[in-house]
Amino acid sequence: MSLPLGFRYSAVYAGLRKTKRNDLGLIWSDKPASAAAVFTTNVVKAAPVLAAQANLLAAGGRVQAVLVNAGNANCATRTGDRVVKDTLSALSKSLKVPAKLLFPASTGVIGVEMKGELVVKAIPALVTEASESRFDDVALAIMTTDLVPKSVAAGLELKGGVVHIAGMTKGSGMIHPNMATTLAFVMTDAEIAPAKLQPILKRAVDASFHRISVDGDTSTNDCVLVMANGASGVAVAPRELKAFEESLTVVLQSLAKQIARDGEGARKLVTIDIQGTKNNADAARIARSIANSPLVKTAIAGADPNWGRIICAAGYSGIQFDPRGVDIAFQGTPVCQRGLAVDFDESALTERLKENDVSIGFKLRGDGKGAATFWTCDLTEGYIEINGSYRT
Amino acid sequence: MSLPLGFRYSAVYAGLRKTKRNDLGLIWSDKPASAAAVFTTNVVKAAPVLAAQANLLAAGGRVQAVLVNAGNANCATRTGDRVVKDTLSALSKSLKVPAKLLFPASTGVIGVEMKGELVVKAIPALVTEASESRFDDVALAIMTTDLVPKSVAAGLELKGGVVHIAGMTKGSGMIHPNMATTLAFVMTDAEIAPAKLQPILKRAVDASFHRISVDGDTSTNDCVLVMANGASGVAVAPRELKAFEESLTVVLQSLAKQIARDGEGARKLVTIDIQGTKNNADAARIARSIANSPLVKTAIAGADPNWGRIICAAGYSGIQFDPRGVDIAFQGTPVCQRGLAVDFDESALTERLKENDVSIGFKLRGDGKGAATFWTCDLTEGYIEINGSYRT
Repeated sequence: MSLPLGFRYSAVYAGLRKTKRNDLGLIWSDKPASAAAVFTTNVVKAAPVLAAQANLLAAGGRVQAVLVNAGNANCATRTGDRVVKDTLSALSKSLKVPAKLLFPASTGVIGVEMKGELVVKAIPALVTEASESRFDDVALAIMTTDLVPKSVAAGLELKGGVVHIAGMTKGSGMIHPNMATTLAFVMTDAEIAPAKLQPILKRAVDASFHRISVDGDTSTNDCVLVMANGASGVAVAPRELKAFEESLTVVLQSLAKQIARDGEGARKLVTIDIQGTKNNADAARIARSIANSPLVKTAIAGADPNWGRIICAAGYSGIQFDPRGVDIAFQGTPVCQRGLAVDFDESALTERLKENDVSIGFKLRGDGKGAATFWTCDLTEGYIEINGSYRT
Repeated sequence: MSLPLGFRYSAVYAGLRKTKRNDLGLIWSDKPASAAAVFTTNVVKAAPVLAAQANLLAAGGRVQAVLVNAGNANCATRTGDRVVKDTLSALSKSLKVPAKLLFPASTGVIGVEMKGELVVKAIPALVTEASESRFDDVALAIMTTDLVPKSVAAGLELKGGVVHIAGMTKGSGMIHPNMATTLAFVMTDAEIAPAKLQPILKRAVDASFHRISVDGDTSTNDCVLVMANGASGVAVAPRELKAFEESLTVVLQSLAKQIARDGEGARKLVTIDIQGTKNNADAARIARSIANSPLVKTAIAGADPNWGRIICAAGYSGIQFDPRGVDIAFQGTPVCQRGLAVDFDESALTERLKENDVSIGFKLRGDGKGAATFWTCDLTEGYIEINGSYRT
């Protein structure tokens, strides 16, 4: 799959992380791109989030470059705003791009002053070494407790020609309830106005990142950014907006599922399908309740088809339903029908629950048309190990 | 501390558990007692919960005996209602007490048919062996993954003489979000009308069991029951109701804190104090958000004074506040003031966080009068070990 045209990438080690691994990344469009972003709803917002929101507004929804670091969240710090200002100012000079077209993002520890001078010092090399082929280097640089870099690319044939969409993300944490920062950057060479892009991104995020239960309980630094620089020369026609949205949704869902699969300590991607509720919102609420239950997540880790934990988590979701109308399946195998146990080959199902991909189906009998799909991961000892001493 | 007068206790092994450990308990008052109870709000309710609610209503708030078993929740089973009926009927004959004065309770696995005949068979011995001194045997019999039995006794001097209050409970699970069943039985020899008792219990539970975040996300079997049999001959006078409520609250808080301390895999009791919010409800919501954060709980397990996770969890609680007005302390040591890091002796504080009792203080500056105290536990590898294969 080809990457979108007109973007350059770079990553260097600025010294923000203790271990010597690239911790500073640059995504740089040849020209200002239409941009849309979704940010954390946390009351506590990191300095780069506030600056990114302000810049996006000041530039009328345009971004030309992203400056992202790992190792420090630049949040709840005395010097946060100053650090953002100094580093963007240095990058602005180096790229010859107005500062308001720059988009800052940070991930790492909260409450520790960030050494902006290390970033300023690293910027010349960062800019010099930028190239169209270094996409993966940025995906690697933004990782924190992630075990693998996460990226995806897709092509879409429009009437005027092919456009490309590529995205990268970082996540980890137990996904929810969590505070691990989610950062996602999606680049496309399609031509589309910022005003068109924002609602499309909002809906695509609702169907992807918000389905791994990161909304509501978001970190201080979360953001998902899309940049469309039009370098393909192909504009998205009004009647093609739906197709473009679908492609963007597929890209974001792939990234979101990669985050769920790589949850801290996780060994499995768990897909939860809810059907038969009154509406989609009810289905999402039941799905979220199941996805967030540590008892469900540990049962999956132990390959235990313990459907009692599923029906119980659904029961405290806040959605009313008749327990006698509940069907539950693991890996497509019915384990509960009309709210009661059904016979199944327990040892065979336990074997199948040891697979890397686990599905949970929860269906209410009747004529309800509501449905939702959620993704989560299992909960293992690894999660505790990682988080018991992350800061130190 | 003396136990309340006029209650007998018994426990036997009926064979509901795989391991041979008492799994059937009886609490038996010499005469019908005034009773009040708070039940699970889960949509999915076990058969004994529905029967207990019906009996309490039919008997006008009177209970003479509790029949409780561990090993099977008798929930989401085909034969649930029949099992409750048969076992209460057998107990009714054996005790010569009308069935509607009997209160059933169960804890254990969901969705597996319960063998009622084992209980029926065990009832004669259960009744024969009942005695005033076997209180602790029942507390032991109701344990599931609890490591220690949980009980407390208190005395209260009223105008007419001394009354006694004693309670036992079982819990475990990570407390919240959880589905581990909470059962609590409180006995008193005070004389008080059922209509007076119910609102007192409701408020006492709000200040105790609902402060270890079990409300909302409750199991299919949760219940807290208080029985007042008047055997002391001392009635609670109208002007003494407040003092009685305070004693009952102290008893329930002790039981609730014992549950939190013995959370699955837990090594520490964590007390979270919130101050300075607009009202108590806001404080409780922030406290709950902090108490439920796996990242906070793992940091405590690792003795890591990671206040960034505290402020972040408060930030996604849904309550609005100015991060620059936040003070945070661990073990009374300030680690964050006005939303910013303050200098503290990190190694000394890390040592203190290794203690069995950890306190987290979160205060908003200003004139807000809201406050709340919550209790939770740390999250360790032990939790995963216990829950990865509980059912099998």
